[in-house]
Formats: sequence, C-alpha cells, structure tokens
Amino acid sequence: MSVNETNSNQSPDARVTARLADWIVSVSGEDIPPVVRREGLRTFVNWTGCAVGGARHETVDCAIAATLPFSGKPTSTVLGRGERVDALHAAFLNGISSHVLDFDDTHLKTIIHPAGPVASALLALAETRPMSGSDLLNALIVGVEVECRIGNSVYPDHYDRGWHITGTAGVFGAAAAVGKAIGLSVQQMRWALGIAASQSAGLREMFGTMTKSFHPGRAAQNGAFAALLAEANFDSSEQAIEASRGFANVMSDKQDYSEIVSDLGIRWEAGLNSYKPFACGIVIHPTIDGCLQLRDEIGDRVNHISSVKLKTHPLVLELTGKKTPATGLEGKFSIYHAAACALLRGDGAPTAFTDEVVNLAKIVELRDKVSALTNPDCHEASVDIDIVFDDGSQISKHVERTIGSSDVPLSDEQINQKFTTQAALVIGDEATTKLLACCWGLESLADAAGIAVVSVPKDNAPTKAN
Amino acid sequence: MSVNETNSNQSPDARVTARLADWIVSVSGEDIPPVVRREGLRTFVNWTGCAVGGARHETVDCAIAATLPFSGKPTSTVLGRGERVDALHAAFLNGISSHVLDFDDTHLKTIIHPAGPVASALLALAETRPMSGSDLLNALIVGVEVECRIGNSVYPDHYDRGWHITGTAGVFGAAAAVGKAIGLSVQQMRWALGIAASQSAGLREMFGTMTKSFHPGRAAQNGAFAALLAEANFDSSEQAIEASRGFANVMSDKQDYSEIVSDLGIRWEAGLNSYKPFACGIVIHPTIDGCLQLRDEIGDRVNHISSVKLKTHPLVLELTGKKTPATGLEGKFSIYHAAACALLRGDGAPTAFTDEVVNLAKIVELRDKVSALTNPDCHEASVDIDIVFDDGSQISKHVERTIGSSDVPLSDEQINQKFTTQAALVIGDEATTKLLACCWGLESLADAAGIAVVSVPKDNAPTKAN
Repeated sequence: MSVNETNSNQSPDARVTARLADWIVSVSGEDIPPVVRREGLRTFVNWTGCAVGGARHETVDCAIAATLPFSGKPTSTVLGRGERVDALHAAFLNGISSHVLDFDDTHLKTIIHPAGPVASALLALAETRPMSGSDLLNALIVGVEVECRIGNSVYPDHYDRGWHITGTAGVFGAAAAVGKAIGLSVQQMRWALGIAASQSAGLREMFGTMTKSFHPGRAAQNGAFAALLAEANFDSSEQAIEASRGFANVMSDKQDYSEIVSDLGIRWEAGLNSYKPFACGIVIHPTIDGCLQLRDEIGDRVNHISSVKLKTHPLVLELTGKKTPATGLEGKFSIYHAAACALLRGDGAPTAFTDEVVNLAKIVELRDKVSALTNPDCHEASVDIDIVFDDGSQISKHVERTIGSSDVPLSDEQINQKFTTQAALVIGDEATTKLLACCWGLESLADAAGIAVVSVPKDNAPTKAN
Repeated sequence: MSVNETNSNQSPDARVTARLADWIVSVSGEDIPPVVRREGLRTFVNWTGCAVGGARHETVDCAIAATLPFSGKPTSTVLGRGERVDALHAAFLNGISSHVLDFDDTHLKTIIHPAGPVASALLALAETRPMSGSDLLNALIVGVEVECRIGNSVYPDHYDRGWHITGTAGVFGAAAAVGKAIGLSVQQMRWALGIAASQSAGLREMFGTMTKSFHPGRAAQNGAFAALLAEANFDSSEQAIEASRGFANVMSDKQDYSEIVSDLGIRWEAGLNSYKPFACGIVIHPTIDGCLQLRDEIGDRVNHISSVKLKTHPLVLELTGKKTPATGLEGKFSIYHAAACALLRGDGAPTAFTDEVVNLAKIVELRDKVSALTNPDCHEASVDIDIVFDDGSQISKHVERTIGSSDVPLSDEQINQKFTTQAALVIGDEATTKLLACCWGLESLADAAGIAVVSVPKDNAPTKAN
C-alpha cells in the first residue's frame, strides 16, 4: 500500500478516500470560517451537557460494570462521574451517555447525531495525549464534517435499509478527528479511514434498547482505535469508501461521492448542526414549544384550564399517542403528558420525563384535559394549540416552526439552559456553572483535558438522576 | 425487553434469534456427538498452531504497538509471545495472529475461517474467568456452530456483496461461545446476540492488507464484549438476526433462517471444519500435494529433473501465475515456486514462502523448469503433474482431490506436522512439542488457561520468523 497521488488510470471516483484523507491532513484551523467554528463550539458545549446529563443513566451503569474489569491505565474521565478508565473505554462510555437521553444534536439532512462519536473520542484522548482546546475544536469540526459528508453520500438509502447512521458514519468521523489530533500522515490517514470502514456498524433494530446508544459509544472507541492503529503503521485499503467491495457499495444502493469530495473547505456540513431542545421524540417538540410560550402568557390561569386542543401532524399521534403513560419512558411517547408538563411546570427537559413527574396528580389531571386531532396539512415542525379556561375565555397558539428546527436554531442562551437543566441534576449547580463556562472557553484552554476534570464535582458523589 | 416464549402472533421467522439463544444456553457437552467433539478438538489444535505460527508477523507487531498503551490488567497471553494484556485485547491479538498467514481453518460451505473469532475469545477469557478444558471445547463447538449456521443463512449473497464473512458471522460465534462459557441466562444470551449483531462488520476490500486479519481479531474481541455486556444486563433487541432492520435483512438479500434453527443438535456444521495444509493461495494446493507425493516416490532423482508440466484449473494461472517471484509474499502467488519448493524441500508451510527460500539457487533452477497449462475440465481441487528426468524417464501424478479438501481431510498426524512446522519457528522445538501435547489433552485440563501459558517458551525470546 503506497501513496500514489497521480495515477491517471483511476476514475475520479477511485480517489474518494484518498482525497478526503488528504484534506483532513492539510486543513488548518485558519481554513475554518468563523461561523463554522462558532457552530463547532456550540456543538461541543451541547455535547458536554448531554454527556453529563446522561452519565447516571442505567445504560451507562451497565456498560461501566462490563468495562471496568478490562480498563487500562485510568487516564480518562467518565464525564459527570467519578470513574477513570483508559482513553478508549472513556470514549465508549461518554459516547453512550451523550446519546442515551435522545437529547443530543442532529445533522438534519442525515439524522446523524454528530458529536457523540467524535467529541467522545477526542476529549477522552486529550487526557492522555495532550492537545489544546483550539486543536480539539479544529479536530471536532473536521470529524463532524467527515461523518456528515460520508452520511450525505449514502443517505437516505443507507438509513432506510436499516443502518443506524450515527454508528456507521460516526466511526469515520472519530477516526478523522483523532487522526487529525494526533497528526497522522496522509498515508496513515487513508489507512485510518480504511480501518474505520471495516468497523462501520450499528442496526436500527436496536432502537428502544440500550444498544442504540452503544452505537455512538462504539463508533467513538473504534474510530479512535483506527487512528491509533494507523499511527502504528497498521495498513489498510486506501479506497475503503469507494471500492467495489468498500463501504458505500456494500452498505448502500446510493453512492454520491461528490457529497464527500466536492467543495471541501467551502461547503461546511459541520455548520449545519442542530440541537434538540426537548428530551423526547422530536415530533412532540412543536407542542412543547407552543405550551411553553402559552405558559408565559397565561400565568396563574394555568390552574384554571378547562381543555387543551391540539391540531398536529398525523405522525404525532402514531408515534406519541399514549393517553395514560405510567413511567418516565412512556411519558416520552405521550403528547398529552408532554403538553401538560410544559404548561404546568415549564419543562421539556429530562426532568419532565421521570416516573415521579409522569404520575403527579396535577399533571395527570391536566393531561386528561388534553385532546389531539391530526391534520394532514400540518408540517411536522408545526402545531396549533387552543386552550379554553374555566371561565370560557380562550387563547390560541400557532407554532409555524418549532425551536430546534433548522429555521429556529437554539440560541446560545437556550443551549446554556439545556446544559444547566440536565447537568445540575447529575453534578449539582456549582459544578455545572463552572463546567459550562469552561466549555465556552474551550479555545482558550492550553490543555483541553481540563474540561473532563471539571465535569466531576469535588465530592464525587453526584445526585442520582433518572 | 422481556422474554416472551409463547407469542402466537409471531411468524416462525420471528423467533430465530430467540430459538438460537435458547439452544446455546440449553445444549450440554453430552449433546455433542463424539465425531463432532473430535472435530472441535482438531479445530482447537489447528487454531493454536496457527496463532503461534503467526505471532511474530509484522501485522501483530503493529497491532500490539497500538494496543499496549490501552491494555487493562495483564491477565491474558498473546500466544507464542511474551506480552500479557487484558482478555479482550488478547482475544483481538490472537485472532489476528491465527489468521495472518492465511493458513487457518475453513468451513468450506461459507468460506468462514471459524476458529479465529471463537477460540481467540475463549482462551483469552479462560485466563481470567477460569474454565475447564472440556467447558472450553464445548463452548468452542457451540460458537463455531452458531457462526457457520448464521453464515449459511446469508451465503453466498452476503459474501458476494463484499462482506468478509469471517468477521461478520464470527462476532456471533464469539458472543455465543463466551456467553456459553460464562453461563448467560436465555435472556442475556438473546441480548448478547443482539449486541453482536450491532458490531457485525468487515469488508472484503481489505484483502491484501493487515486489516484482513484485523477482522477475526476484532470479531473475537467484540463478540466476547457482547457477552460480557449482556452479563451486566446491558439489553438489546431479541430479534437482532431476523428483524426487518436486523442483521440478515440489512446485510444480505438472501435469508434462509432454516439454516439457523432447523435440526439444532442434529445437523452439526462444526463437524465440517477443514484445515489448510499449505500457507498460500488454496488453488495451488493440489500442485503442492502432488509434488510432495512425487518427492517421496522419486527420492534422489529430484536432483535430475528435466521438466515439470502441470495441467491445472484455469484459475490457477490467473491467480498464481508469477514466473519469477522475488519475495516470500510473491512466492505465495507462484505455482512454479510452490511446485519446486514442494519437490526439493518437501515444504508448503510458511517456511516455503520466505524471501530467502524463494531466492535459493536450486529452487530457482527447478522453478524455471516448471510449466503449466490450463484445462477447463480440471476440477479446482485437482491437478495432473508430468515429470521428465534427464535420462528421459518419466513419472506422472494425478491428484483427484487435494489434501485439505472436504473429500481428503487432514489426518491428525498432518495437523500435528502443520502445527509443529509453523510453531517451532516461533517458540522452538521443545515448547512446540509440549504445547501440541497440551492442546490434544485439552479435555483433561482442569484449567484451560494452561494452554496459553505453555505457548510462551521459558526464555521468552522467540526466534524471529517471517
């Protein structure tokens, strides 16, 4: 396997992996436009909050139990917890925790959740292979760019076929990011993408089980390992993406390689990332958004509601039509609970979907007053809400595009609120405030590993959260 | 995810994973027929020899360099070497070394190399989770059975599409074997197969690179980890193989589930394993077989050969037609070198394919006297060899089916010779003799881990081999 830059017998498609690797190695921080850089920072802040927020989930507990007996030198932090493990296992565990609440980020064109595989790999490695915050951010943006471009090249067929694209594309993102951070040569970067391709995996059948969040965790770990193997000159194919028996042909009927190699450094997929405002099925989001706005407008009258009528996209009732949820998890699939909880408690965060809250008498009482009709003409990101009060007065709200959709991105302040709400439950207010400030200051850190350390509160005995 | 044994709404295909898991958990050593048990032992012996034989390959060196910084408690042995690493990394490294010489075992119906993923996982784990030799053998046979049945269900489409089936099916075998060895419940075994399914990976594009042998290594490691996660109650789909977005539908156009669930415990795929007699492309095997027989018949006359004429299957020249190989690796693709080396040195082992041997004057001289013609009617496992001596006398040999093919399986003695030839190069004669005896005595071992320990010679400074 030797680098051959100028083989004129190759078709343009024959150098997809090579051209991508060349770009990954050559791109510098200055090549990243400020607006993309800023989105990268928002991606990092949001990811850190989600990783801490999910850190005490049962899924992470089980994964840690299986992992600890095999962990190497404890260089790296399980975010928001006390355990330290080797960097590859930390990448795995933080990738799980950042996705387990279904509350992370979304590249809307491919439904990839980009940060989990990439940021989890980078921060874990930063604790043993020091890198500045600025270098970590550069590598994060490059990794996200790579996974989303590879995702674009095969989406939607690849996803429709049943691949969990966050796992299958994510492993390339992690390999690219870690490879960038540790300074692989062009030759090694091509191998890293090849070794990543041979670990591209994750089935949609796993949705609804712990194995769903396993996918970004394993993608982070496997992608990082691909880069480390390549660094040790473990070789691989240099056409792993485009070869006839490579990633795109084997795992998809669609292959659009221009999505991968065209306008590299000009068109930035990493600038298109979005952040989930609520910790539940995305089809409920317009209703929560509207109810939160109404809550502000009606004040104490929330205690005198006679009925709440929703007109929604048909998919909403198909996916989230549970009338009488009994558990927090079921609450994530009940538009009625979500509406009542948003109105009464102003909450769409993980705290809104606990066993306790789902069974509160006041919530149940209002939930039973909520009804929903579907309207085929309703956009998925829209809803109409009509509230009638006990005195017969009414108020209505039309949500044209919900917060968190591409038209209404979360503001920095909203990202902060999301971060604080979930992280404080796990590591407390003080540590949360400090961590959040630390995340926004990523680029000023001489040693990015500081972020991981700050995520663990001093007393090391965080509150148990759902 | 709860176990539901009697859901009558499910079609027969809806319980493939569950039925397979039930069988894995319930099958006992007494259920395995003696002939299958014996084949399992031969599989183990052959695998150990290959793992030791490949242990000093550059591929293993690179993998170890990348792995050591992340290894956990050094419980487990890299076979044939001095390093000790955690069990999951040992599974990975031994899986690589057992396959890297392309000299291991083959389930001919699917071209799966069954032992690499399964035995590598089991023996590494046995060093930290003690198991008897008999229990290890039971688990090995069960694991091989599972991977070959799953392979059968999707072969050939799955393989033709570009999946390296030793990796994709192997991960199920490793999960089943380790799950059996550590005593998973039925519920946990179903999850283990699910977590395995979400790690099923490996592309044929990697053939010819180090990433080829990476596949069985990673399958061993990932399958073992799947079982360990399930043991920690990390849950997963219970229909991972047969679901619409599960393994078989996503990764193949062919799904024949009867291959997986029919006649479990009656029809044994694990009894069909075969062992490669020579360390090179399988199409050369008939020629080496015939030349070895002729060498015995002609004695000293081998030094007075005027010409060697081969009539072979057309594929032989297409794949292995190198007239003047210059390196050991090229020698593996030269029917001329292979014939000369078999005649002069009686060798088709890894020692026949070193840089030194390929360039020996006597070998080159005879190699140049070898010619080959193709015959479309010739079976792939056949060859005709005509030798003319300097005095004009002749001798001919027709090989109807080469050794190592399903019709002419390797005898125990031939497995021993194969083992000895390759292992002695790495760990020396004394350790090889001891290890071989230890392997055949597997069933009598109270602690199977002894095998791994014996594979490392006392001086811990093995000879460097190609």
